[in-house]
Amino acid sequence: MVDTSKFFSNIQKHIVLNDAEKNYLTSILEVKEVLRKELILKQGQQCKKIYFVVSGSLRAFHINNEGKDSTIMFAIQDWWITDMYCFINQKPALVAIEALENCQLIGLDFSSLEELYIKIPKFERFFRILFQNAYSREQLRALDHISYTTEERYYRFVHKYPEIVQKITQKQIASYLGVTPEFLSAIKNK
Amino acid sequence: MVDTSKFFSNIQKHIVLNDAEKNYLTSILEVKEVLRKELILKQGQQCKKIYFVVSGSLRAFHINNEGKDSTIMFAIQDWWITDMYCFINQKPALVAIEALENCQLIGLDFSSLEELYIKIPKFERFFRILFQNAYSREQLRALDHISYTTEERYYRFVHKYPEIVQKITQKQIASYLGVTPEFLSAIKNK
Repeated sequence: MVDTSKFFSNIQKHIVLNDAEKNYLTSILEVKEVLRKELILKQGQQCKKIYFVVSGSLRAFHINNEGKDSTIMFAIQDWWITDMYCFINQKPALVAIEALENCQLIGLDFSSLEELYIKIPKFERFFRILFQNAYSREQLRALDHISYTTEERYYRFVHKYPEIVQKITQKQIASYLGVTPEFLSAIKNK
Repeated sequence: MVDTSKFFSNIQKHIVLNDAEKNYLTSILEVKEVLRKELILKQGQQCKKIYFVVSGSLRAFHINNEGKDSTIMFAIQDWWITDMYCFINQKPALVAIEALENCQLIGLDFSSLEELYIKIPKFERFFRILFQNAYSREQLRALDHISYTTEERYYRFVHKYPEIVQKITQKQIASYLGVTPEFLSAIKNK
């Protein structure tokens, strides 16, 4: 059984829902349990859903033509994850999303979400705040990429996301920082 | 005289405003003309406004402790620009924003915008769409940073933003890509 109370608490950080609205939301959400290493999105596949993480952790990554694996983002409990560009434009996914451990997720379908905005406009507020925070986080990350060395970025990441660091491998951190595992290991041994 | 019609057209891409709503919006916006090289935001200063670019172009950049200048974003006509993290958290700006040429801008103050969301909730929709697009753009940029070489990123940037490339120097492109102008020049001469 997936406990949806964390999902509603996450939403009620920013908006207040009455019972009818909660019932409507319950009717459109899709509860999903996935096993460790399972892919909830494959690169090239249509990206139809945005996911809320009830429990567990995930990684979004891109494999380029040379086979290089680059991590775009991690998501843990209480976070949201999707391939945003492909979700809003309904294009084939540029990234894959894999479960790093067994996960409980709540998915919202693109068309259900578009309908939700129309039926219960206060969700515009919720997602406006969610996306402005996500945008702000990515703008800071771009700043990190161009102003800091890999070593500085490594320590900033570890300091900022200690809960994530516990759940991932050194190889995955290296892939998030855009360096080889050997390079990361050399930094850490310095 | 700053022509506000482009500002209203930009907003009416996503929402429809009646005359009363247009008048209210007009009453809270701040029209601003700035000269080339003028700073509309200084690093460390409180970031109080989000700007719409009526005409001209701007650059947001960060100077680190070693004096290295890194460009976070450019903005041209019909774009919006701010230091998002500092704007929404009302913290001192991490970036400065300078006019690359004479500009006409329309600014919205943080507290006026928060009031606007309450008074005319359809602005939640407008900014939800604006921020989801901005988030998506930054997620793609993160992907670029970790999966492509500087050379590839240079050509992707030139191909994606030809209108911006016309307005900026090679030094500014290098600062956006996070490399030295000499490195960029070597790539282009290859």
